[in-house]
Amino acid sequence: MKGSVLYGPGDVRFEEREEPKIIEPTDALIRISATCVCGSDLWPYRGISPVTEPTPMGHEYCGIVEEVGAAVKTIKPGRFVIGSFFASDNTCPNCRAGYHSSCQHRELVGGAQAGLLRVPLADGTLVPTPDFSSKEMIPSLLTLSDVMGTGWFAAEAAQVRPGKTVLVVGDGAVGLLGVLSAKQMGAGRIIAMSRHASRQKLAREFGATDIVSERGEEGVARIMEMTKEIGADSVLECVGTQQSMMQAIRSARPGGYVGYVGVPHGVELNGEELFFSHVHLHGGPAPVRRFLPELINLVWNGKINPGKVFDLTLPLDQVAEGYRAMDERRAIKTLLQP
Amino acid sequence: MKGSVLYGPGDVRFEEREEPKIIEPTDALIRISATCVCGSDLWPYRGISPVTEPTPMGHEYCGIVEEVGAAVKTIKPGRFVIGSFFASDNTCPNCRAGYHSSCQHRELVGGAQAGLLRVPLADGTLVPTPDFSSKEMIPSLLTLSDVMGTGWFAAEAAQVRPGKTVLVVGDGAVGLLGVLSAKQMGAGRIIAMSRHASRQKLAREFGATDIVSERGEEGVARIMEMTKEIGADSVLECVGTQQSMMQAIRSARPGGYVGYVGVPHGVELNGEELFFSHVHLHGGPAPVRRFLPELINLVWNGKINPGKVFDLTLPLDQVAEGYRAMDERRAIKTLLQP
Repeated sequence: MKGSVLYGPGDVRFEEREEPKIIEPTDALIRISATCVCGSDLWPYRGISPVTEPTPMGHEYCGIVEEVGAAVKTIKPGRFVIGSFFASDNTCPNCRAGYHSSCQHRELVGGAQAGLLRVPLADGTLVPTPDFSSKEMIPSLLTLSDVMGTGWFAAEAAQVRPGKTVLVVGDGAVGLLGVLSAKQMGAGRIIAMSRHASRQKLAREFGATDIVSERGEEGVARIMEMTKEIGADSVLECVGTQQSMMQAIRSARPGGYVGYVGVPHGVELNGEELFFSHVHLHGGPAPVRRFLPELINLVWNGKINPGKVFDLTLPLDQVAEGYRAMDERRAIKTLLQP
Repeated sequence: MKGSVLYGPGDVRFEEREEPKIIEPTDALIRISATCVCGSDLWPYRGISPVTEPTPMGHEYCGIVEEVGAAVKTIKPGRFVIGSFFASDNTCPNCRAGYHSSCQHRELVGGAQAGLLRVPLADGTLVPTPDFSSKEMIPSLLTLSDVMGTGWFAAEAAQVRPGKTVLVVGDGAVGLLGVLSAKQMGAGRIIAMSRHASRQKLAREFGATDIVSERGEEGVARIMEMTKEIGADSVLECVGTQQSMMQAIRSARPGGYVGYVGVPHGVELNGEELFFSHVHLHGGPAPVRRFLPELINLVWNGKINPGKVFDLTLPLDQVAEGYRAMDERRAIKTLLQP
């Protein structure tokens, strides 16, 4: 079986890999219908996170169950399923509290940029669609595996409510789907921070009412001006740098909410500043599994079309170009077809 | 008029100060019935916060309105009133959102350790009691000016709910009243972290069900053991050091809530650790004004007796001994009578 392997900064290869098989009786094997490149895949690709050994890439997936282990009860071969990048048992206290990505038995799913994928804890992790997916719907269903669930969690963590003023920091795929999520949750005003024409256009299509191109302290000043010096009710932080995090915190109103889903890289928060900001802070790796039933339902019934974030579709063997296009910001997000 | 003045570390004096008077038409003058020493007064007293000039001390107060400015409408001379350490207009968007301590016109109240006090924005800041206070009730009413309101805010920010497991980090007066607040809000289990017999005793009286004397990583390990490796639902952070803050965050369950009210001194939060902890973080200077009507009601009807935190009562001219006793942890909190 062939799949993607990252060897070092800028060096992702499509090559022969060992075919996955059932290891634990709770595993399932999935024949991948579509996979993609995640913004977080770019951290090691850019050399910001170290790559210590050749690493099979990809953690976003949907497809058809090929085989299940002996202990798998609810997931059946032949079903079209979606799962999160964190496998979870869906029964431990953390899962029951809705934090599947902190499951006491969580396992990272990896190597999804391939034809076949092993998913641990299949019953807890995978959610089947009501029926077989049409080809047109696959991109939107694929986003539910991570990027859409993450944007949704950002909006949820930021307590987006009908009529509220929402700010989205970050115009990557997660930020754009944060805009879509805020719209779906009834936000009154959605300000997207972006300086790229194609992303601004998609942000508006997803529901952004205002675009701000300033960044850092200038960006904060612009938001304060737009909100009568009060700040936004809800801020979705979808980047993970020191600058974006402080921009988010400083743009929220006292008592406002910052939902942060960008994996922090080198971020340090000053306790005193945070204290006097009076913001609520919540985030982390999105508990995607919690949202899957609801989001599958929204996609299935045509209420949302998050698949629009894919502006580049390539056959899986061109995975290297998929990474390059995102790295150079020629593409927002690359869908890969095995 | 005589009052307390801090000259430098360990050097607080009772001496002649200029008598306050109405400056703005929105001011009121209060004849102080009781005042006290705050845990936060110990930061400059201990030299941890710098003292650049002789500073009149005290920001907790209750008493009788002596005089009001021409623009004061609702607060009447002769009424017994309580106010917060932050004066607030109670009308700006931040006040209306319940964050009076981020009022757009907020002013710090200072110099309350005296016979007479100027309170700005009197109509927005002061709340009268239903009737004249009995002498016995004065200590409890005094706590509402800061320490009880702050413990209450910690519990509120930590989303204490009926039946939940609550952890209180810090056995100062704020932490102890955080215990009382959690009890009043219906917590099922209240774990107080304390290694001082007198404070443990009061914690139990206020509703603590468990006492943990370990600190730092040992303290965290103990809490994880007590909560089946999940963590507490709600954690009240009532200290403000790096150790106490990390202890609080690491003791909360994924999806749990940390309410922090200890003014952070040198605290830096690592973004990545916070991200993967999955906690909700909220806190800041307590918006005491929001809680005053409810808390006055609870004290007035004998539902809570927060005045028990005062284990030392001194005439105001012995203010220096009041600070010493708290600094040496001989007293939990000192009440001062002008």
